[in-house]
Amino acid sequence: MTEHDTHADTRAAMQAYGRRARAAARLMRNASGRAKAAALLAMAELIEARADTLKQENARDLEAGRNSGLADAMLDRLTLNDKALAGMVNGLRQIAAMDDPVGSLGPTSIRPNGMKVAQMRVPLGVIGIIYESRPNVTIDAAALCLKSGNATILRGGSEAFHSNQALGAIIQQGLAQAGLPADAVQVVDTTDRAAVGEMITLTEYIDVIVPRGGKGLIARLSSEAKVPLIKHLDGNCHIYIDKAADPGKAHDIVVNAKTYRFGICGAVETLLVHADIAASQLPGIAATLVSKGVELRGCERTRAILPTTLPATEDDWLTEYLEPILAIRIVDNLDAAIAHIERYSSQHTESIVTEDLAAAARFQREVDSSSVYVNLPTCFADGFEYGLGAEIGISTNRLHARGPVGLEGLTTMKWVLTGEGQLRG
Amino acid sequence: MTEHDTHADTRAAMQAYGRRARAAARLMRNASGRAKAAALLAMAELIEARADTLKQENARDLEAGRNSGLADAMLDRLTLNDKALAGMVNGLRQIAAMDDPVGSLGPTSIRPNGMKVAQMRVPLGVIGIIYESRPNVTIDAAALCLKSGNATILRGGSEAFHSNQALGAIIQQGLAQAGLPADAVQVVDTTDRAAVGEMITLTEYIDVIVPRGGKGLIARLSSEAKVPLIKHLDGNCHIYIDKAADPGKAHDIVVNAKTYRFGICGAVETLLVHADIAASQLPGIAATLVSKGVELRGCERTRAILPTTLPATEDDWLTEYLEPILAIRIVDNLDAAIAHIERYSSQHTESIVTEDLAAAARFQREVDSSSVYVNLPTCFADGFEYGLGAEIGISTNRLHARGPVGLEGLTTMKWVLTGEGQLRG
Repeated sequence: MTEHDTHADTRAAMQAYGRRARAAARLMRNASGRAKAAALLAMAELIEARADTLKQENARDLEAGRNSGLADAMLDRLTLNDKALAGMVNGLRQIAAMDDPVGSLGPTSIRPNGMKVAQMRVPLGVIGIIYESRPNVTIDAAALCLKSGNATILRGGSEAFHSNQALGAIIQQGLAQAGLPADAVQVVDTTDRAAVGEMITLTEYIDVIVPRGGKGLIARLSSEAKVPLIKHLDGNCHIYIDKAADPGKAHDIVVNAKTYRFGICGAVETLLVHADIAASQLPGIAATLVSKGVELRGCERTRAILPTTLPATEDDWLTEYLEPILAIRIVDNLDAAIAHIERYSSQHTESIVTEDLAAAARFQREVDSSSVYVNLPTCFADGFEYGLGAEIGISTNRLHARGPVGLEGLTTMKWVLTGEGQLRG
Repeated sequence: MTEHDTHADTRAAMQAYGRRARAAARLMRNASGRAKAAALLAMAELIEARADTLKQENARDLEAGRNSGLADAMLDRLTLNDKALAGMVNGLRQIAAMDDPVGSLGPTSIRPNGMKVAQMRVPLGVIGIIYESRPNVTIDAAALCLKSGNATILRGGSEAFHSNQALGAIIQQGLAQAGLPADAVQVVDTTDRAAVGEMITLTEYIDVIVPRGGKGLIARLSSEAKVPLIKHLDGNCHIYIDKAADPGKAHDIVVNAKTYRFGICGAVETLLVHADIAASQLPGIAATLVSKGVELRGCERTRAILPTTLPATEDDWLTEYLEPILAIRIVDNLDAAIAHIERYSSQHTESIVTEDLAAAARFQREVDSSSVYVNLPTCFADGFEYGLGAEIGISTNRLHARGPVGLEGLTTMKWVLTGEGQLRG
């Protein structure tokens, strides 16, 4: 087969996925909450019943991964062991137990002519998920999209192909057992990379795509996509220790935000410290961080207080390390802290440590990031922590969903008006 | 100058607009509600004080329009007479009097660890407006974007160039009088068509674009834009007269929805009628519509009842006439009505006429349009009628703003979390 034929085949295949998803979305839109919960619970039972099969299929992926030289960290993320399977089962049962978001009504207002105006929550329609090696995303994403009444097309990484196909079969059986269309969740069965390029242009069949993966992948998809993306780019997060900070809280918040996990998007990457309290507070914070293996890089004023600290460059202010490194800058006041964040932040999550009500209010009002905290570590950036019950990802978009995205971000609102024959004009 | 030079100049000019807008947006984000209202009121006074100048500049556009053979309807829409100016002044004062949406907080939830989670309404940032000949859009759009704390770049049609420039000068003087950055509202001063092509790709400087104009323009911009659009495509609206409809309401609702104004997106284009009541209700409705100059096109069953009606083709079901034409189809039941709408509607606004609670509930739940009515004419599709206070347009997008878009659609939400040193993990 020529390359041209292959591409035409992939296009035709992806359009067929799209058509089936659109048809399933029409049925899913009006599926009852009871049926959707039953499907999720059936999937949980099937995962438990077929644990051996899932591990066998996963073993094929792991073997291929080892043969192709996948890094140990990647192999870890790819592995479906008892703990990973139990995590999926628990996730499915939690999502099954959540309230159905579809059909709920916001406040109703009565217009002067007596007609009633409200907004009703409805599914987005067809959601595409493009993701890398973690097979648990197959279950998590499918469950959230299903609960919110959408049809879903999942395109996972080729490293997890056999695992994802096995999970896809379980998902479709769970849907069928609950009387829902199996096409409501489709796991793409081609590893052709062109499939992703086709998906992101299928505006007729896909309403939104949630890409999950490295920044390079997301940036490339963004520049080529015609379908809207709910996407996550950088998490270059800041903490500002104000003059009026409680020193004990400041210490614990910074240490937690840096060391809870180095690789998460909510990890703090730059610490800003008010000049008046830097000499008294920085040494204790630095000592704890260094004892935990964190490398510090500071501005000149920081290095005057912490002489062994490496010098920070302009690049450091811009970098999301995702590693045990922290940049530190001393600033003269709240205005300078906000100005630094305005210039260098990726507008993900920032926090102020202060006991000063006015400083807290100004920081929370003026900092233009998707999450702005007072007296909390930035590592709380997570849908479960916010009470969303689950999370499809964290959005760095400004439009539609911003910050952690739960079920609501996978829905939209329609206006519902009710009258008794009122006329216009 | 070569064509290449001109394009490079236009690109540089549009990037400069973008840079200035981005800088102004930083200041506007934290502008007080008082300053924004003062700017709007200053603009209203300036329009009144400079009515003669505005009419003179408008006369230049009108003369050029007549010389280039603009249609009378276009010249009408272009004209700034006393009535048009009074409309702008009233609009400015109404928007000045509205509550400032920026900084308002949604409900606060308390997490088990005691931290408080809420969402705060904030501006989108920089909004681009691309529009055609009506100069009143310059004032209306600028006022709404300003009130919601955004910076705005307005690109009007070349037919209204002198009118828009004169209005732009008034807007910038009003901003300066209130101590706000004049660059918060910029009216593009080039008529080079390439300026639009540049605007829709300025993702670094523009957060969202609201294009207003014909369907051809919007479709072209959609296919080329990199900046997200809040856009309006078709309004192929339906009314379904149910078996349980009140005949008097059905008559008045259909007549109002078709004849309130033929050219608005909320005008009904296809009427669906339950077979059981078609023979009793259609003749009266048809007689009134025909007496008002409306041409009727019906399915075969309709023509059996209304023999002089023209036959409707597949194209009629798909067409947004925006003219005194109505397509009529008789359907067997509510399911058939919903299926017709599912297949042919542009998902803008649909209405059911019924006294049956279950039929009303099913229609409102199952029809997937941005507005779904019970016992109301579709011509209510308008932000003022919904109580939004003002309207930048009607969105046919599914993401972010859907249906009539008021101030809220020009804002987004950020998460604000407040704690007392809670840590994660």
